Amino acid sequence: MRTRLNQATARYSPPSATILLPMSEFIDTVVRVRYAETDKMGIVYYANYFVYFEIGRVEYLRQRGLDYRQMELEDDSFTVVAEAKCRYRRPAKFDDPLRIRTRVTSARRRTITFGYEILHDETAELLATGETIHVVCDSNGRPKALPEKYRRFFDYDASPSTSNLKED
Amino acid sequence: MRTRLNQATARYSPPSATILLPMSEFIDTVVRVRYAETDKMGIVYYANYFVYFEIGRVEYLRQRGLDYRQMELEDDSFTVVAEAKCRYRRPAKFDDPLRIRTRVTSARRRTITFGYEILHDETAELLATGETIHVVCDSNGRPKALPEKYRRFFDYDASPSTSNLKED
Amino acid sequence: MRTRLNQATARYSPPSATILLPMSEFIDTVVRVRYAETDKMGIVYYANYFVYFEIGRVEYLRQRGLDYRQMELEDDSFTVVAEAKCRYRRPAKFDDPLRIRTRVTSARRRTITFGYEILHDETAELLATGETIHVVCDSNGRPKALPEKYRRFFDYDASPSTSNLKED
Amino acid sequence: MRTRLNQATARYSPPSATILLPMSEFIDTVVRVRYAETDKMGIVYYANYFVYFEIGRVEYLRQRGLDYRQMELEDDSFTVVAEAKCRYRRPAKFDDPLRIRTRVTSARRRTITFGYEILHDETAELLATGETIHVVCDSNGRPKALPEKYRRFFDYDASPSTSNLKED
Repeated sequence: MRTRLNQATARYSPPSATILLPMSEFIDTVVRVRYAETDKMGIVYYANYFVYFEIGRVEYLRQRGLDYRQMELEDDSFTVVAEAKCRYRRPAKFDDPLRIRTRVTSARRRTITFGYEILHDETAELLATGETIHVVCDSNGRPKALPEKYRRFFDYDASPSTSNLKED
Repeated sequence: MRTRLNQATARYSPPSATILLPMSEFIDTVVRVRYAETDKMGIVYYANYFVYFEIGRVEYLRQRGLDYRQMELEDDSFTVVAEAKCRYRRPAKFDDPLRIRTRVTSARRRTITFGYEILHDETAELLATGETIHVVCDSNGRPKALPEKYRRFFDYDASPSTSNLKED
Repeated sequence: MRTRLNQATARYSPPSATILLPMSEFIDTVVRVRYAETDKMGIVYYANYFVYFEIGRVEYLRQRGLDYRQMELEDDSFTVVAEAKCRYRRPAKFDDPLRIRTRVTSARRRTITFGYEILHDETAELLATGETIHVVCDSNGRPKALPEKYRRFFDYDASPSTSNLKED
Repeated sequence: MRTRLNQATARYSPPSATILLPMSEFIDTVVRVRYAETDKMGIVYYANYFVYFEIGRVEYLRQRGLDYRQMELEDDSFTVVAEAKCRYRRPAKFDDPLRIRTRVTSARRRTITFGYEILHDETAELLATGETIHVVCDSNGRPKALPEKYRRFFDYDASPSTSNLKED
């Protein structure tokens, strides 16, 4: 996946705000824009990019070996969104194939940050970038530490400079 | 509400397919079409009418004195949709004020049927009609009889010809 | 595709209500349930099945060689929904892989009917069945005959018993 | 509206990040959480807050005398979202009455920034804050200056310190 990422990177300047080294590699998933997701302007309604981000997160975890559904069910651990943002660069249209690129940009004991890029999968144009910050909670919404066994999926090892002991 | 309903009724012929006497009166609620609900054709995306039906159901129950949220929480009784249909007559557009008219057309021990009409609230044009059939279930999805105390809200008394003892 | 369909067919009884011979074969597409599509009952919100139907329609046309986006743009022909219904048999849950099976069950000069089945792609359980009836319209919402060149995609040849000359 | 706003303000500390004086007053609108907007966690799905923001924007303009629908139709002026963010403080639940408070925090020749607060309308708890930045575009997505006649609705007069002549 690295080769492709480097090629893509060469074509545009990544948004400086989401760069926090070290971080994990992007994991990609492709979806097509649904008619339901467009609005009367003829383009994808802005809130739907956050749905694309969710798809990216779930696929990121699945491809790294974590079934998020099981994490909720078996370990009562939910990644509740605390903050979300998106920067829209070019509109996506009905039936466009979208490449959702997802990575973990920061992982601490109780908070995890994902970064996203959405590209047109055929033209490689960058359509949007975004970020979501999550707090690990139990099913009652109480913050908790992410269970030890899940940490490797969120690249805790990849962020040695941010101690797992102190909270953000 | 009767006066207003009669006036509205005078303006158009109700769809014959949803008339099953005896049944409850319509209860109305008005919403505005959101930008998010439109699609690239410039009109409300067809699936969203079922969201309007849900709003109609919840308001129907609230105006009759039943808090559906409490029915789920306190009595573990959910009205799971078993069947849904909609007939689209004229398109609704962004910012249109929609009058959602809801009534119970049939209520049995385990199933409840709602009928809907959606009108443009200013022109009184009929935009859509629909029906949803619900099965009362517990939180595990197992069918159950609607608790006695809730029956009056669903007009069981108004349907004397359909015995509460035999199931449909 | 026939082999796979026949295998799937062997596992359950198709809903008799949607069988109207002759009709086209099913064309399948698989999607995963998104978190956004669930509701507080923990299952897919009922209106979202109509979004799945739309995905099925678009993929049906694409796999038969028709780009629906082009049909709208180049020939000012939209398939506006006139009626939609769904029968819910078993709930779909977050992350479930859903097989959406779509076929044309009737095609006339101005109206097209699609039939759908939604199965859990791993267990082959039938989750829902549905139907949508569409009227061909121009971008102003005026009904028109489907342009000649598109008829083969909708199996007009497959419905010899329903004359293309008389309207429904 | 000022009295009410001051009372509400007294009950919580506004988020410091969205304070940029001078700016317009908040205009409020109240909606109820729909079942469709919840997810399997039992709370409002995070992307739906951006739909609430859109409702707030449209009502803000309506209450100031601008019909956004007409602005699109008659003057070919669309406010395309360039950036959107939301900070989630407490979850909203099914049937909760939400007060969406909207104001313009910056208005320049081609860009307009809206700020939002979402409160539980009964408890006055602050549930979320957010911001959206819009670029004025024609129907082809080309940036343009906001037509002169619309400027007063977006409080250009209220932002004397940000010159209308230079672009951000």
